[in-house]
Amino acid sequence: MPVVADTDLRRMAARILEHAGVPEAHARLQTDLLLEAELRGVPSHGLLRLRRIVERIANGVADPVTTGRHHWRKDAFLEVDGLTGLGPVVADAALDRITTRARDTGVAVAAIANSNHLGMLAYYADRVARAGQTVLVLSTSEALVHPWGGRRAMLGTNPIAIGVPTEGEPFVMDTATSIVSMGEVHDHANRGAPLPEGWALDAAGKPTTDAKAARSGALAPFGGAKGYALGLAFGLLTSSLAGAALGRDVRGTLDSDAICNKGDLFIVMDGPNAMLADYLVQLRETQPAEGFDRVLIPGERGRQCRAKRLQDGVPLADAVWADMQQLASAAGFKGD
Amino acid sequence: MPVVADTDLRRMAARILEHAGVPEAHARLQTDLLLEAELRGVPSHGLLRLRRIVERIANGVADPVTTGRHHWRKDAFLEVDGLTGLGPVVADAALDRITTRARDTGVAVAAIANSNHLGMLAYYADRVARAGQTVLVLSTSEALVHPWGGRRAMLGTNPIAIGVPTEGEPFVMDTATSIVSMGEVHDHANRGAPLPEGWALDAAGKPTTDAKAARSGALAPFGGAKGYALGLAFGLLTSSLAGAALGRDVRGTLDSDAICNKGDLFIVMDGPNAMLADYLVQLRETQPAEGFDRVLIPGERGRQCRAKRLQDGVPLADAVWADMQQLASAAGFKGD
Repeated sequence: MPVVADTDLRRMAARILEHAGVPEAHARLQTDLLLEAELRGVPSHGLLRLRRIVERIANGVADPVTTGRHHWRKDAFLEVDGLTGLGPVVADAALDRITTRARDTGVAVAAIANSNHLGMLAYYADRVARAGQTVLVLSTSEALVHPWGGRRAMLGTNPIAIGVPTEGEPFVMDTATSIVSMGEVHDHANRGAPLPEGWALDAAGKPTTDAKAARSGALAPFGGAKGYALGLAFGLLTSSLAGAALGRDVRGTLDSDAICNKGDLFIVMDGPNAMLADYLVQLRETQPAEGFDRVLIPGERGRQCRAKRLQDGVPLADAVWADMQQLASAAGFKGD
Repeated sequence: MPVVADTDLRRMAARILEHAGVPEAHARLQTDLLLEAELRGVPSHGLLRLRRIVERIANGVADPVTTGRHHWRKDAFLEVDGLTGLGPVVADAALDRITTRARDTGVAVAAIANSNHLGMLAYYADRVARAGQTVLVLSTSEALVHPWGGRRAMLGTNPIAIGVPTEGEPFVMDTATSIVSMGEVHDHANRGAPLPEGWALDAAGKPTTDAKAARSGALAPFGGAKGYALGLAFGLLTSSLAGAALGRDVRGTLDSDAICNKGDLFIVMDGPNAMLADYLVQLRETQPAEGFDRVLIPGERGRQCRAKRLQDGVPLADAVWADMQQLASAAGFKGD
């Protein structure tokens, strides 16, 4: 497994994006999203996605320049038409507006349609919480998850991220409402490893541990009926307010040629914030249960991984590294 | 099991509350909360709680008259000091303010501290969504849930409700982030029934299927590490913005003599709303998986239960019915 310094990966990815027509500042932001995912150990939202972004730009379903069109429907409600812009670029511009507005109004919302894949939601939650505001981030995706008790993928993985400032590092959690990502299923298929029971159905809607069969089937919601209810609620909430597509009508988060019609929702709230650090320390120091080393705080493992990879480099799947080198070479990148 | 008409229960409960010093309109609202829980098949949030409310008023830790003190910290952010008011009364007054404000601002928040137990969160989500707005409701509670991998209860059951208007009945979901309620554990203990594995730890932090032992232990978060992360995030978000207590410091949701120091958070968003009914029909018509009759939409079972109980009456546990009769008799209620 190749291990590459994050600074090198950053330069390569930015060059690849700029070669595809992405302005420098946008390329830096999109690269930062992909790299942060690699650093925190979430490769499904990392450089794996670079080729698809480049292809989507080439196919005219992602506009590398636009930051989206903003319309304040009400004082604290920003409607954003992403104009097929890059997910992080459109989201970042919207966040600039609503984080500023929320300082006046106490809360502000951005509902985004017609924008590309956001990448790792924790990135945005971390940004806002680090600057002292509380934030919820929701996004929808293509139908990959079956309803509890159903045979067929009808829901997106509908992730949520929540960021809350504390006296120290912000609290940031980020989770999909599927039991696992489809990337994880593909990873098992590639390694010839069986899936744990309960993760997935095959194309006929039967429970399967065959990762290859699960790729054309459906993922389970996490936590059974409750996780299904939450994932569905997040999807309805987001699509309803953003005016975006739902369920099997969603396109453009996994392919290279369809306009992306999912929705994103950001809710930013301005303090006041109670002191949380003592409680998080108590939580971390809770006596661990049998079979556990210790109690983790969400985001903690990602931060440790990040610190290590900044120092030791980022391990990449062979295929991802080969792909990057090919893209870089096509972009005229010579290691400079 | 006694079965009593909801109208009779309503009259009895209102009389009991009025006798305890609750003004008529407040008594009607608090009664409505308890009755809706009974009608929808959620007895843990039903008439079981009536005696505690009466005792809390008598003990001076619940003020039956106040609607709370409101302070618009910012244009769209309402800080509410509940002044130890009844949960539904304080929440209802706050909702009046922020649902109106959100029509101007697009979004408005109420963060409530120092108020009593809200009861079933779906009640509020249903109210707001039925009037055409989208809503998130969060509330914290006493520590009953262990962190994933930990031995001790450190988190509240930290429920969430989400309401989204549709062309027909609103979509309303409501779930705690524990795998089950402590009320369910008590119910198993009372029936001498064992708990399913994975539900609870005993007081020493060891997994147990003994319901009696679990009562002094901790409930599991639903959905393992993901449910733990969500429950924690909901708790931090709510307590942080409401300035409320956290974890083992929370009091007053299960006892009769401590000031209630949990927090509540309402986020109301004003349209625009996409059409959702077609998608919900598709979801309901998804072919069921093996072992399931059909796919349910969250809230559907509760509505069916409600319709049936409005017609046939509300079945009550013997102890709850005996308790109500005793309270009603003490309040001078003679069936009028």
